[in-house]
Amino acid sequence: MYIARILTEKGICYAQAKDGRFFLIDGDCFNIKWVSEKPYHGEVKILAPVEPSKIIALGANYRKHAQELKLTVNADPTIFLKPPTAVIADGEDIIIPEGSTTIDYEAELAIVIGKDCKKVKKEDAYSVILGYTCANDVSERVYQKLDGQWARAKGFDTFCPLGKYIATGINPEALDLKTVLNGVTVQHGNTADMIHGIAKTVEFVSHIMTLKKGDIIMTGTPEGVGPMRDGDEVEIVIENVGSVKNRVRKQTAK
Amino acid sequence: MYIARILTEKGICYAQAKDGRFFLIDGDCFNIKWVSEKPYHGEVKILAPVEPSKIIALGANYRKHAQELKLTVNADPTIFLKPPTAVIADGEDIIIPEGSTTIDYEAELAIVIGKDCKKVKKEDAYSVILGYTCANDVSERVYQKLDGQWARAKGFDTFCPLGKYIATGINPEALDLKTVLNGVTVQHGNTADMIHGIAKTVEFVSHIMTLKKGDIIMTGTPEGVGPMRDGDEVEIVIENVGSVKNRVRKQTAK
Repeated sequence: MYIARILTEKGICYAQAKDGRFFLIDGDCFNIKWVSEKPYHGEVKILAPVEPSKIIALGANYRKHAQELKLTVNADPTIFLKPPTAVIADGEDIIIPEGSTTIDYEAELAIVIGKDCKKVKKEDAYSVILGYTCANDVSERVYQKLDGQWARAKGFDTFCPLGKYIATGINPEALDLKTVLNGVTVQHGNTADMIHGIAKTVEFVSHIMTLKKGDIIMTGTPEGVGPMRDGDEVEIVIENVGSVKNRVRKQTAK
Repeated sequence: MYIARILTEKGICYAQAKDGRFFLIDGDCFNIKWVSEKPYHGEVKILAPVEPSKIIALGANYRKHAQELKLTVNADPTIFLKPPTAVIADGEDIIIPEGSTTIDYEAELAIVIGKDCKKVKKEDAYSVILGYTCANDVSERVYQKLDGQWARAKGFDTFCPLGKYIATGINPEALDLKTVLNGVTVQHGNTADMIHGIAKTVEFVSHIMTLKKGDIIMTGTPEGVGPMRDGDEVEIVIENVGSVKNRVRKQTAK
């Protein structure tokens, strides 16, 4: 099932997305009481599928990507945080900050947490996952190298586009994921190549910090990251999960 | 004025703290409509003063601390994020995670943001600050060195004790701050020694990410950090701001 968070004339609500149409949900993505049998006919704007209280991301979770950026791969996952204010929806602009010339795309499968939880065992991990969405872990490489810590490089407003839908009831373990830049596939990988899989990742992160429903865990990017420039159109596409497409725009001083 | 967030028999509310008593506020800390003239007489539990949507922290913002941990000091502040789930209140326990033996205290002045804002100029910074509170940037040094990124080392549940009060209407620029461990002062500094001051910090951070009211910016710790062990009592005390005291407890497997 594909669940979208949408803005309608009546306000913000969740809907099942099917064949390009939206069937309104009574309840929310965590608690679907009922789905309308008739599609919604009014104007719809797709919003980011959740409003996460936090976004945890894995660095260096695909071996070839770790090599291309010369990142150390430890036995434990390396985690970092992106601020909730970085989230944007499909169709919104990614803004290159003043002082930067290029920023990189990074296609990632994002886990959407479905219930508040902590210290989840690997074998129970799937029971706390609502579903999956696409994410673009937009990164400014100059600051990433300069700061050592990645909070600035990956934390600017608009640096976390999230997918149009939450895909539920799918197997995340061997999905093709790619970045399409101006119509050309520039990054291509498969979630089967993750160093730390979905279940282990949820176990690891939830033993550090309590997870809240709606929280996002971004599972790292495969090799092939590269720059985006003013005017580019970037799309992250993940098999069975969906996509997120954004225009890149240079910050204009005001 | 000292503002506390408290749990009373009637629920959670804000109150002015004065001479050990609480005068209930109509409204909240961001919008004080009216303060009761009579103190509240029921049972009160002090909560963390805000529920931040994000916590931004500065690394290496005191030169001697940067030296003691061999941290690089760049021209720009180095920022990192702590998850909101790390926040605890005065009187709650700091938990040493399973697998760790000691964790470090770090006394810090924390800025409490008073309004949603972005791209705040240095000269306008004080207009977006509600006040200040104490913070303990609890840190696990083994993971801090191992991971490179500090999200795990500084992101465990309970690793962000916040002060009893928000102090408003004070000058933050030359305040004594200290850590008292089991009654002994073990860390002592002054906010005058910050490399990046309050106004510059707000300008810097708000040019990266939109700040929301209630967000916390932790301004770094002076030299003299050190370990806490099971059973220790740790208190952060900042002149004119207040304090936060917590017991340290080892995680027990359950």
